[in-house]
Amino acid sequence: MTDTPNDAAKTPRGTSRRDFLRTAGLAAGGAMVGAGAKAASPDPLITEVQPYASFLGEGVDATPYGMPIHFEDHVVRRNVEWLTADPISSINFTPIHALDGTITPQGCAFERHHSGAIEMSKDEYRLMITGLVDKPLVFTFGDLMRMPRVQHTYFCECAANGGMEWGGAQLNGAQFTHGMIHNMEYTGVSLRTLLNEAGVKPEGTWVYVEGHDASSNGRSIPMEKALDDCIVAFYANGEALRMEHGYPVRLVVPGWEGNMWVKWLRRIGVHDGPIESREETSKYTDLMPDGRARKWTWVMDAKSVITSPSPQVPVSHGPGPMVITGLAWSGRGKVTRVDVSVDGGVNWQEARIAGDPQSMAVTRFYFDHVWDGAPMFLQARAIDETGYVQPTKEQLRAIRGLNSIYHNNAIQTWYVNENGDAENVEVS
Amino acid sequence: MTDTPNDAAKTPRGTSRRDFLRTAGLAAGGAMVGAGAKAASPDPLITEVQPYASFLGEGVDATPYGMPIHFEDHVVRRNVEWLTADPISSINFTPIHALDGTITPQGCAFERHHSGAIEMSKDEYRLMITGLVDKPLVFTFGDLMRMPRVQHTYFCECAANGGMEWGGAQLNGAQFTHGMIHNMEYTGVSLRTLLNEAGVKPEGTWVYVEGHDASSNGRSIPMEKALDDCIVAFYANGEALRMEHGYPVRLVVPGWEGNMWVKWLRRIGVHDGPIESREETSKYTDLMPDGRARKWTWVMDAKSVITSPSPQVPVSHGPGPMVITGLAWSGRGKVTRVDVSVDGGVNWQEARIAGDPQSMAVTRFYFDHVWDGAPMFLQARAIDETGYVQPTKEQLRAIRGLNSIYHNNAIQTWYVNENGDAENVEVS
Repeated sequence: MTDTPNDAAKTPRGTSRRDFLRTAGLAAGGAMVGAGAKAASPDPLITEVQPYASFLGEGVDATPYGMPIHFEDHVVRRNVEWLTADPISSINFTPIHALDGTITPQGCAFERHHSGAIEMSKDEYRLMITGLVDKPLVFTFGDLMRMPRVQHTYFCECAANGGMEWGGAQLNGAQFTHGMIHNMEYTGVSLRTLLNEAGVKPEGTWVYVEGHDASSNGRSIPMEKALDDCIVAFYANGEALRMEHGYPVRLVVPGWEGNMWVKWLRRIGVHDGPIESREETSKYTDLMPDGRARKWTWVMDAKSVITSPSPQVPVSHGPGPMVITGLAWSGRGKVTRVDVSVDGGVNWQEARIAGDPQSMAVTRFYFDHVWDGAPMFLQARAIDETGYVQPTKEQLRAIRGLNSIYHNNAIQTWYVNENGDAENVEVS
Repeated sequence: MTDTPNDAAKTPRGTSRRDFLRTAGLAAGGAMVGAGAKAASPDPLITEVQPYASFLGEGVDATPYGMPIHFEDHVVRRNVEWLTADPISSINFTPIHALDGTITPQGCAFERHHSGAIEMSKDEYRLMITGLVDKPLVFTFGDLMRMPRVQHTYFCECAANGGMEWGGAQLNGAQFTHGMIHNMEYTGVSLRTLLNEAGVKPEGTWVYVEGHDASSNGRSIPMEKALDDCIVAFYANGEALRMEHGYPVRLVVPGWEGNMWVKWLRRIGVHDGPIESREETSKYTDLMPDGRARKWTWVMDAKSVITSPSPQVPVSHGPGPMVITGLAWSGRGKVTRVDVSVDGGVNWQEARIAGDPQSMAVTRFYFDHVWDGAPMFLQARAIDETGYVQPTKEQLRAIRGLNSIYHNNAIQTWYVNENGDAENVEVS
């Protein structure tokens, strides 16, 4: 890792989509349609009969539940050995560099456990509502399945995502710098519905949520949020939650830090104040330069990252048309704009957002670029519907210092050299 | 399977969501919150310390790419032996009865192969554009990755979905009657972009698309559709296509029958008319009562099915609140309304649609019902933005007769008896 000044940054070459197509049209016969240009030296993969054209493939009984094809074996969750010495209370990272679209498949969505993923059946499952309620309740899984369901796609980001980067460019890959995030379609019962069943007393202004696992991972949530959009979820991306994501039931706390999305949800206690648990005092607080700590920093502010190219996905071709793509999100609502810079933040151009951005869900952006082959300093910055603009590392450090672990939402830089190799750097 | 008249159908008991909650509130302490009512006989799963509270679970290294927990082993693709004697050229069914939300995970999304699923690497992959174009082109996978990408969620339904039901209630489960459908978020290059690169000659009014597999499964598509919304896709639900779904590249033809969504896409031929291949003459045409066949029946008309309760997912509890849920879709645009009947179509009530319906994508609906314990004849009917109303079996047969295999979009009936068991029946 190096700190690379951006004085070598080139004139931006980003173009609009229409420009891209025109340029690509002119370039046809070149790199863009390389194989097509080789009419004089026939491509045997086109001119020869391939085995696929005569052999029969695999039948429908082969995989009742399928896995990715072996060519994609590298698209998996990974951890960082020095960071995660104890795999039980640990973290791994979504391979965001190798994905596209917005949905994160459960199979490769990052995991964070405080005492390991537990194997609990629906029959064994119980959810309690206790404390300042008219009527304490216990729900079986079957009870929950009888209540009105809601459905929404949300991102879940660990507050520590990017936490290793406060002091400088550290981990060489989007998977490791920004991979503590996933984005899934959740189905379950509104937490509001359950609380209304129990009847919250007027003095019940907070809930304290705990899991069935040994850590219990208890977190306090203000009643206003609990009654707003939280979901007691049992399905993600259409199917049951996976074990590592809290089967059979987890809490979804839209836009707020992942630590509050308690897995294997066991109890919702209604209280007249926050509990001030370990998970909200010694952890999940932000140590400021003056030695005091920010707490209740629940919302995940607007953030973005270029997922390709990036250190794990270098540019595999020469100059010419290329797709720069990444993810943007905000815990405060919809992402309304994403800008991309190829010169380390000197010049910015608006990226295309794919589809209609959803509130507190991941948004995919594309920037169709014609690369001149010179080194690039790639950056993206997200802007959300509140008008908030993702800060630079300098701007963030000026306020927050260097003691923090959590809530680093600064702009990320990838340096791409003449060979297309990419590296995690800082520009200043 | 029996044909059951609906003269025994009961007064409808469907209620609005507000009614549901009020009723549930009154019923509290009853079945709804069954465990909570057992305060007098403590539930050891609540009163005793559980092993989860002291043991450590599974660490983050356990599953670099995770699978569903073993409790969900029944949620898999299944075939029907007598229907699919040859697994190579065959079909299986999405377990829609056990899913919720709208996304279909790739691992359990139905498969239809004409000569088996082939294993092709990205390096071996080639896509040709030939015929009436200014410049025939060959694209490598790398070439495609350099072109501007689009992203959209669409359903893919086999034209034969429900085909076994023309003659009467036949297969006892939503998975088997309606499971030849999946719904995924696709990312790829617009087919229009590729055709514009090649330059379609004025006389090029159709494309003929073929796969790399032995069947080639060629289909003709009018140029108007090819230039509209078709996607040459490489990602589904955020990750690479699975082998059985056409890795590395398949065609997405939004709203049109699944047979046209050619997998392992090999060639796009531009022609001045349709090819009239086997797949559009002896197959994928609809034999009418007079012996003539309808062809070019590409669009999948509006359809819906109740996924739970259904024969594979009986009502597992007594009378009281319950969730009736299902899927609705239309190849002509958005689903704007879904009605549910509990009395075999005598009375209809509007269901809740979850989220914002997307055009040519699956929509999830919920009907929060208070069951009185009497038998029900459950039906759903979809209405799309064109005003089209999903027909009854009688209405469809009056026009199409009984010779068809394809395009059965009639209303489905599940008979639910006093014990909660459900069965595929017809009402007349």
